[in-house]
Amino acid sequence: MTDPVAILGGTGPEGRGLALRFARGGVPVVIGSRDAARAAEVAGALAPGDGLPLSGAVNADAARQAEIVLVAVPWEGHERTLRDLAEPLAGKLVVDIVNPLEFDDRGPVTLRVPEGSAAEQAAALLPGSTVLAGFHHVSAKHLLDESHAVDTDVLVCGDDRAAKDRVLALAERIAGVRGIDAGPLRNAHILEDWTAALLSINRGYRCNAGVRLTDLDPARRRP
Amino acid sequence: MTDPVAILGGTGPEGRGLALRFARGGVPVVIGSRDAARAAEVAGALAPGDGLPLSGAVNADAARQAEIVLVAVPWEGHERTLRDLAEPLAGKLVVDIVNPLEFDDRGPVTLRVPEGSAAEQAAALLPGSTVLAGFHHVSAKHLLDESHAVDTDVLVCGDDRAAKDRVLALAERIAGVRGIDAGPLRNAHILEDWTAALLSINRGYRCNAGVRLTDLDPARRRP
Repeated sequence: MTDPVAILGGTGPEGRGLALRFARGGVPVVIGSRDAARAAEVAGALAPGDGLPLSGAVNADAARQAEIVLVAVPWEGHERTLRDLAEPLAGKLVVDIVNPLEFDDRGPVTLRVPEGSAAEQAAALLPGSTVLAGFHHVSAKHLLDESHAVDTDVLVCGDDRAAKDRVLALAERIAGVRGIDAGPLRNAHILEDWTAALLSINRGYRCNAGVRLTDLDPARRRP
Repeated sequence: MTDPVAILGGTGPEGRGLALRFARGGVPVVIGSRDAARAAEVAGALAPGDGLPLSGAVNADAARQAEIVLVAVPWEGHERTLRDLAEPLAGKLVVDIVNPLEFDDRGPVTLRVPEGSAAEQAAALLPGSTVLAGFHHVSAKHLLDESHAVDTDVLVCGDDRAAKDRVLALAERIAGVRGIDAGPLRNAHILEDWTAALLSINRGYRCNAGVRLTDLDPARRRP
C-alpha cells in the first residue's frame, strides 16, 4: 500500500492534474482546499467511475493525512496559507511547487522573494517540516489531458537526501516523468524562475513545453 | 559567404568550443582575447590542418571584424571588458553568454547583478549595440569533444526580433542544436541562473547535461 500524498490548494489546474496522474500511478491523493466541500467535489469529478484513490479535505486535514504534502496554492496565498498550517505540517515532507510570478503585457515576470524563493519562505514558516521544491514545470494542461503523454523531467531540490529520494520516487509514479535531483534548496529560486522562461516560450510557440535534460544517466548519481 | 562571428574572451573552454563548432558549420570565427598572440595561437590549435575559418585578434579588433559578437569573458572581467569596447561594439549584435556565478563547497551560487543580469549590464554599458543573451547552457566539454554529438537547445532572449532571428540561425549552424526564442531580454537572468542548476545537476550525476524542450514545435512560433 502506497502512502497517501496531500496537495494543498489542490483544486487548481496544477493540483488537479498532479492528483489525477498520481492516482493513476497508484498513489492515494488527498486534495486540500480552504473549502472541504469544494475539495471533495473536485476529487470526485476528476475521473468519476474509475475508482481512483482520490479524496478531498480542508487543507489542515489533508496535511494530517499524508507524510508528503505538496503546496500548490497561488503565490498570493502562499505565506498566509503556510503560516496557518505550521502545526499540521510539522514532521512532514513539504514540497513547494509554487512559482512567484506575475504577468504584464510582455508576459511573465519573476518576483523577488525576500527569503530567496517561495520554497525558502516555506522553510522559514515551517521550522518543524522538511521543505523541498519541485514539480514547477509540469504542464497542468498535459497532466489533465490523459490523451497526451507526459514527457518531462521533474527537478527537485532540497537539503535532505532521504527526503529528496522519496520525492523523486513520487515524481516517477507519473508515467513519462523522470525525477532529477537539482541540488540544495538554495537552488529553488532557479527552478521557480525557470517557469517564467517556459511560460515566455509557451507564449512564443503556442505550446506547453516540458524540459528534458540530455546527456544525463540517472544511474551515475552520486551516492 | 557567411558573415564572420567574433567571440570575445574566446580563448576559454566555452569560447573555443563554440568557435570550433561554428567553424565546422561553415561560420568564420574571429577569436578575441586581451592578447592578440594568444588568440591567434588558440585559433591555430583548435583543428590544425583542417582549414577551418578560424582566426585570432585582440578583442577590439575581433569586434570590428564581425556583425555578431559573442561575449564569453569570465564574469569577473565582464563589466571592465565591455566598458572598454563600447566603441568597437557600436552597431553590432552582442550576444552575452556570461553566467554570473561563484562556487562554494556546496556547488554553484547565483550572483545578483544590479542591472538584473549580465546581459542587462551589457545593454547598459553598450547603448549603441543590440544586446541579446544566449548559449549559456552548452557544455564546453561536449563542444570541444568532436566524438560527442551536441544534443541541446540553445535559448536566446532579446528585445529585437530580427536580431534574435539571426542569432537563432547562428545557433543552428552547430550540428545538434535547436535555437529557441526565450522571450525578452529581461528573461536573461533566468537563463544565466539556470546554468547554476545545471552545474549542480552535473555535479550530482557526474555529467555535462544539456536541455531539450519537449512538446515544442518550432513551426508554431508566433510571427
